[in-house]
Amino acid sequence: MDDATLRFEITRLGECHVPSPMRGVRFVGDDERVLYHARLEDLGPWLQAHAEPPAMEVAGPRERLLFDPSSIACGIVTCGGLCPGLNDVIRAIVLSLRYHYGVTRIHGFRYGYEGLVHRHGHAPLDLTPEAVARINELGGTVLGSSRGPQDPAEMVRTLKDLGIGILFTIGGDGTLRGAHAIVEEAGRQGLSLGVIGVPKTIDNDISFTQRTFGFATAVTEARWATYAANAEAEAARNGIGLVKLMGRDSGFIAAHTVLVNSQVNFCLIPEVRFSLERLLGDLSARLQHRGHAVILVAEGAGQDLVAPTGGKDASGNAKYGDIGLFLRDAISDHFRRTGTEISLKYIDPSYMIRSQPASPVDSAFCLLLGQHAVHAGMSGRTDMVVSFWNHEFTHVPIPLAVSARKKVDPLGALWSSVLASTGQARDLW
Amino acid sequence: MDDATLRFEITRLGECHVPSPMRGVRFVGDDERVLYHARLEDLGPWLQAHAEPPAMEVAGPRERLLFDPSSIACGIVTCGGLCPGLNDVIRAIVLSLRYHYGVTRIHGFRYGYEGLVHRHGHAPLDLTPEAVARINELGGTVLGSSRGPQDPAEMVRTLKDLGIGILFTIGGDGTLRGAHAIVEEAGRQGLSLGVIGVPKTIDNDISFTQRTFGFATAVTEARWATYAANAEAEAARNGIGLVKLMGRDSGFIAAHTVLVNSQVNFCLIPEVRFSLERLLGDLSARLQHRGHAVILVAEGAGQDLVAPTGGKDASGNAKYGDIGLFLRDAISDHFRRTGTEISLKYIDPSYMIRSQPASPVDSAFCLLLGQHAVHAGMSGRTDMVVSFWNHEFTHVPIPLAVSARKKVDPLGALWSSVLASTGQARDLW
Amino acid sequence: MDDATLRFEITRLGECHVPSPMRGVRFVGDDERVLYHARLEDLGPWLQAHAEPPAMEVAGPRERLLFDPSSIACGIVTCGGLCPGLNDVIRAIVLSLRYHYGVTRIHGFRYGYEGLVHRHGHAPLDLTPEAVARINELGGTVLGSSRGPQDPAEMVRTLKDLGIGILFTIGGDGTLRGAHAIVEEAGRQGLSLGVIGVPKTIDNDISFTQRTFGFATAVTEARWATYAANAEAEAARNGIGLVKLMGRDSGFIAAHTVLVNSQVNFCLIPEVRFSLERLLGDLSARLQHRGHAVILVAEGAGQDLVAPTGGKDASGNAKYGDIGLFLRDAISDHFRRTGTEISLKYIDPSYMIRSQPASPVDSAFCLLLGQHAVHAGMSGRTDMVVSFWNHEFTHVPIPLAVSARKKVDPLGALWSSVLASTGQARDLW
Amino acid sequence: MDDATLRFEITRLGECHVPSPMRGVRFVGDDERVLYHARLEDLGPWLQAHAEPPAMEVAGPRERLLFDPSSIACGIVTCGGLCPGLNDVIRAIVLSLRYHYGVTRIHGFRYGYEGLVHRHGHAPLDLTPEAVARINELGGTVLGSSRGPQDPAEMVRTLKDLGIGILFTIGGDGTLRGAHAIVEEAGRQGLSLGVIGVPKTIDNDISFTQRTFGFATAVTEARWATYAANAEAEAARNGIGLVKLMGRDSGFIAAHTVLVNSQVNFCLIPEVRFSLERLLGDLSARLQHRGHAVILVAEGAGQDLVAPTGGKDASGNAKYGDIGLFLRDAISDHFRRTGTEISLKYIDPSYMIRSQPASPVDSAFCLLLGQHAVHAGMSGRTDMVVSFWNHEFTHVPIPLAVSARKKVDPLGALWSSVLASTGQARDLW
Repeated sequence: MDDATLRFEITRLGECHVPSPMRGVRFVGDDERVLYHARLEDLGPWLQAHAEPPAMEVAGPRERLLFDPSSIACGIVTCGGLCPGLNDVIRAIVLSLRYHYGVTRIHGFRYGYEGLVHRHGHAPLDLTPEAVARINELGGTVLGSSRGPQDPAEMVRTLKDLGIGILFTIGGDGTLRGAHAIVEEAGRQGLSLGVIGVPKTIDNDISFTQRTFGFATAVTEARWATYAANAEAEAARNGIGLVKLMGRDSGFIAAHTVLVNSQVNFCLIPEVRFSLERLLGDLSARLQHRGHAVILVAEGAGQDLVAPTGGKDASGNAKYGDIGLFLRDAISDHFRRTGTEISLKYIDPSYMIRSQPASPVDSAFCLLLGQHAVHAGMSGRTDMVVSFWNHEFTHVPIPLAVSARKKVDPLGALWSSVLASTGQARDLW
Repeated sequence: MDDATLRFEITRLGECHVPSPMRGVRFVGDDERVLYHARLEDLGPWLQAHAEPPAMEVAGPRERLLFDPSSIACGIVTCGGLCPGLNDVIRAIVLSLRYHYGVTRIHGFRYGYEGLVHRHGHAPLDLTPEAVARINELGGTVLGSSRGPQDPAEMVRTLKDLGIGILFTIGGDGTLRGAHAIVEEAGRQGLSLGVIGVPKTIDNDISFTQRTFGFATAVTEARWATYAANAEAEAARNGIGLVKLMGRDSGFIAAHTVLVNSQVNFCLIPEVRFSLERLLGDLSARLQHRGHAVILVAEGAGQDLVAPTGGKDASGNAKYGDIGLFLRDAISDHFRRTGTEISLKYIDPSYMIRSQPASPVDSAFCLLLGQHAVHAGMSGRTDMVVSFWNHEFTHVPIPLAVSARKKVDPLGALWSSVLASTGQARDLW
Repeated sequence: MDDATLRFEITRLGECHVPSPMRGVRFVGDDERVLYHARLEDLGPWLQAHAEPPAMEVAGPRERLLFDPSSIACGIVTCGGLCPGLNDVIRAIVLSLRYHYGVTRIHGFRYGYEGLVHRHGHAPLDLTPEAVARINELGGTVLGSSRGPQDPAEMVRTLKDLGIGILFTIGGDGTLRGAHAIVEEAGRQGLSLGVIGVPKTIDNDISFTQRTFGFATAVTEARWATYAANAEAEAARNGIGLVKLMGRDSGFIAAHTVLVNSQVNFCLIPEVRFSLERLLGDLSARLQHRGHAVILVAEGAGQDLVAPTGGKDASGNAKYGDIGLFLRDAISDHFRRTGTEISLKYIDPSYMIRSQPASPVDSAFCLLLGQHAVHAGMSGRTDMVVSFWNHEFTHVPIPLAVSARKKVDPLGALWSSVLASTGQARDLW
Repeated sequence: MDDATLRFEITRLGECHVPSPMRGVRFVGDDERVLYHARLEDLGPWLQAHAEPPAMEVAGPRERLLFDPSSIACGIVTCGGLCPGLNDVIRAIVLSLRYHYGVTRIHGFRYGYEGLVHRHGHAPLDLTPEAVARINELGGTVLGSSRGPQDPAEMVRTLKDLGIGILFTIGGDGTLRGAHAIVEEAGRQGLSLGVIGVPKTIDNDISFTQRTFGFATAVTEARWATYAANAEAEAARNGIGLVKLMGRDSGFIAAHTVLVNSQVNFCLIPEVRFSLERLLGDLSARLQHRGHAVILVAEGAGQDLVAPTGGKDASGNAKYGDIGLFLRDAISDHFRRTGTEISLKYIDPSYMIRSQPASPVDSAFCLLLGQHAVHAGMSGRTDMVVSFWNHEFTHVPIPLAVSARKKVDPLGALWSSVLASTGQARDLW
């Protein structure tokens, strides 16, 4: 991304005059910044130009707040598909609002943005520390979720009626766009409403954040799918284990899963095109030499091969053809034609992964994410997400966060390690 | 089953003259028996008739053996689908043959009964204690497997050529029938060949054994599928989680999985017929009252509803229509017609369950199973399986073991507890 | 145990006239019995004498009840040390009382029998289905627990004041003795108070039940202690891993843990005496030949070696000397004296095991246990525990259940398999 | 650390003329650098001075190598205590040497640096891809380990005799110092011997690397210890759960474990002094208000309180007094004196954590670590460790890596979040 387009300034709703009730902590100064570039060579031009290189605002508690904890109400909403850690983030926000700041009115909106639209009739939950005490041990989201946008005007009306000062939205790309629309609508109405996003993408494909919650858990669970595929493949003559994993636009989960146990022989991701002929040819060769094979395909891979469905889902994402079923059938057909008896087992573990409780390491990360979201909100920031960048929590404007997707670099170190692990040809096209 | 048809006599290949090398153990007497009936009322007629009630031979080490450990060779073969614990049983047999008896030549036949047929060209593995040292920590089977019968004459020829005295077959119904065919062929040829079966049925549907290896692990893993289905269902308005589990003829896995976490609202098994209309009606009612539902269906349930495929798989089992996909589509169609927006998530975890390593409790059970199989084989028994009955390991003739399948009793305590847990109507027909 | 001393008759509080609200279930007849003996040879004398052999009452729902569900109140109490599944059993009792019978007043007494004594000031919890909804996913006990007896008169006064008709006590030997004392006191006062015990013994050492909840989970978790001991031992020259596990009077957990992964070389249990000299000698030999060793000791083993503490704990059990620390020091001293550098790692995982949530298979078992306890209580039975015997749930009088402890038979099949697995000498004495 | 002392230059053994056999990868240029500072404000002085800020060499494959893969032999050694992922790193190095570069002679030295000293008589293992195929699924280290230094001259002699070109040392502080001594000795002898360190510290306390293998697994496993402590504490009146975790000099594991499930009420780490009086006072207050408490103490905390042992272990580390046992006794004494009956459960899970296999996310990290170590070694680098810094793998000179320990900053964000989670006083001194 061209440095010139980077705008890391965070919008603030107003001047902060309320002293923070937090005691004994190191408050973060408003001018603390984390460098966007970690490479010296990327910094060179800036050094030469004696200019300040692009950098993100550092997250953390501020000495002065915009909102008075004793009078503010807050809202939390979770949108889109399940992701391990949703309940952890909800809980972290509630506990931080209550115990760091003393906020007592916290509303949990039901079923995503639907819960912000009055006519859907979903009364919000009252989120107390007791209500969220051990929800981090449960998968799913206690708030419920839904896909798709709602009318910003209707949502802002609900927020206004409830006197919400800060809305925390936990969701992906579409959710963040919806959050931005709320910010704009509130701005038009002159409302002092903060909107803080916690990026949720099990695919880890949101830009300007190097780590998203749930991803580590997803890789942890996905390894059992490749484990199963390998056990099935090894146990049969010409055994083929085929696993489809999450990854609509980015193959991070697939790539990392390969690295976990090195039992995958072909990894197919959206970023790297492949031809069916090359794949089948190399698969045949592998069966001849090794007697079995494991294939891992991200759901967004090979979309040029599957008939486009044309439709869109409620979130407005293009509905993808099912590359997993396509490959299952294409492989079976191929070997039937060539007279080779194979044993193909197809595994699609997506829902079993998404619904897990967060792994302990993810849980700790979610706790920090939620706390930093609260710090940002109480300080009057808005239209931003909490990010993790170069080992620190930072703030990123929503428009920047949704401006592009993070992708696996086919020439980069991660994909090189994947190729080394699978032994597949660099070029299957 | 009519008591009169029960024949628990175990075939023996000959008189036992070789003293066992085992020291300091309590040898089992050849007349020790475990009662088939555990109920006093079933015993009543026998008491009144002053007759000996039906009983199984007790498993365990014998003081005198048929085979001389120093000269015998043994073989092991695993057949059919994967099941947690296969590697444990292989390992237990190898370790018991070697360390209890001193047998040193142990052949592991590859890819099921194919490995017993010369023209398939699968050389057997040499199974030493070192080779099997930690295979119990791995899922799958190190021997490989395959489905379907092979010609008994060809198999016996291979066994004869290798000088096999005892063949241990680990597999299900079809495998045991194949084992019986080997016994008969060997008998025709006058060979002193013992065949000992270790019943493998992840469905726990083999008769005359109250527990089979892998079943506990399967229930342990299956709970994550219903957990996921529940998390997905609760997170959506009109959320429906639909899980298909193993269970071709018997619903034991489904029934026990219901009892694990009580998150299932409809459990459908082969033993209990249901009508689509009743199911859809009750499902609608549940959605109206509770907003979400979890359905668990065993693969053999509702076969009257799905178009028969007509075909048979390599094992000779009728190929079943896919009740999981059928229900997914039927439910979606129904609510589309009635104008109710639902969110249905379909989960089919079968391969991820079958390929797991055995749970610790299953591992210990497999160790004992394998040891008892060896004791039986060395004592010259043949045409039998090792069973677990009324808290003891026993011997059961293969013909009896395959004479009928074990089923969930729709009027029994297990199904009553399932109904109590799901809250579904006793009669969905 | 001498058959003549077996008294399986269950006490009933009165005639049952209230029809059960359960529908469509198979009610259990009052004369259904499970044979105590599973061996034909144990039955021989009874057959010859034409007498009815000893048998246990079958558990399950009865067509007629003593208590009217609409008016009865019930209580639940958990006593003694933690055991996986406590919350499962509490939940199962609550759900069965409510959904099978319609009972609405269910009190959860806090901190064991203390909660039944007014002056301790622990108000009971109101146990609704909502309150217990997902407690089965948590380790520990939501009721709290305590050790030691309380005055029966005081406890009965509390029960009377609250109008309790059935008290469910979940606990071990001492707890059951306390339950019996309550029965006797209530009898003296002419109260119609049923007391139903659910035997809790992580050691699986209660007689007349072949399976107790939590035991399978304990073995499942204990395997990680021996796994760790083995990894540490193998990683060092003369590495010794020493694990102490539960097992005050009976070595079942230790014995089963050996069978799980066969990584233990010396298993020491209370039932089998050993001398320190023999142990150290064989340990030295093993180090010389194999370079490392794993020792598993049950806490009640070798009590003749450790200085008796003389004291008793609150439950009245003799306080044991710590055989784990004793062996750690004795082994270290020995090899220091003999000039052999060793690396000994000592692991005591007891609390980490006891506090786990139940494994899925244990959870299902707990659900059935709790349901059967409720069925028994509602039918007016008292002074009994729910047992599992020869594959069925049964009723056993408390006095019989506490009359003796179940032990590992040093000449039996289990111990033989342990010896075969460890390779240790049968006689270390 | 003062920027002026930072020396990131990596030593190279010679000019690289051998072309890399790797194909189609993006080779890393020798001038690519990752900034040491991620904060803009830390960079300010350098910008103002128009000077190049400190930066680390980027790790990865180089186009030209020093060593000819066809003739080089390599060695691997693991030292110090167990840490999850040791086998993963060994395996990654072997597979990368073989499959990336074609190296065939790889020696696995046994039992740490002892294996490099001839007179100890430990023959090295031949590490082939087959030998390491699934060792990543096992805890411990297949090479064995030991503590303490050995004579560099003796070690270099062995390396010379075996023709070792690159030695990979996996270990902590002391191990790295030993590695540096080998580098110096080899230099004195004019040997072309590369030494590449893979930093192993379960405590995550090695400077100049933001992430070390095994740490995530340790936190993952440690959560079960606090889970157990909480379950035990909640189940008793005045229940206290006390857990001792790893952390000799740095409290990272303890701090992160607190964040996982927020069940800890007092977290004590080496970096933050506390007085026993303050701790006991606050503990009493918590018991009065909440009835139970969980305390987590890192092993190096409160060393001013425990009697110094004076001794040193084989690695030369000061032997610490046992703060866990000290606190257990001090707390028990205190409440005995004040007449408060408590129930204290003490848990020390260290060995059970260290011996676990790596978690999937750690496994993937280990694979990359091992590959990058190989890339560095083949390119002729020496006296360095592979580090992870600002989201990239980098090279750090050993002398710098061992120059200081990484510590938890008592004023930083991590410790603030811990205090917020525990609710303990910032100042217990």
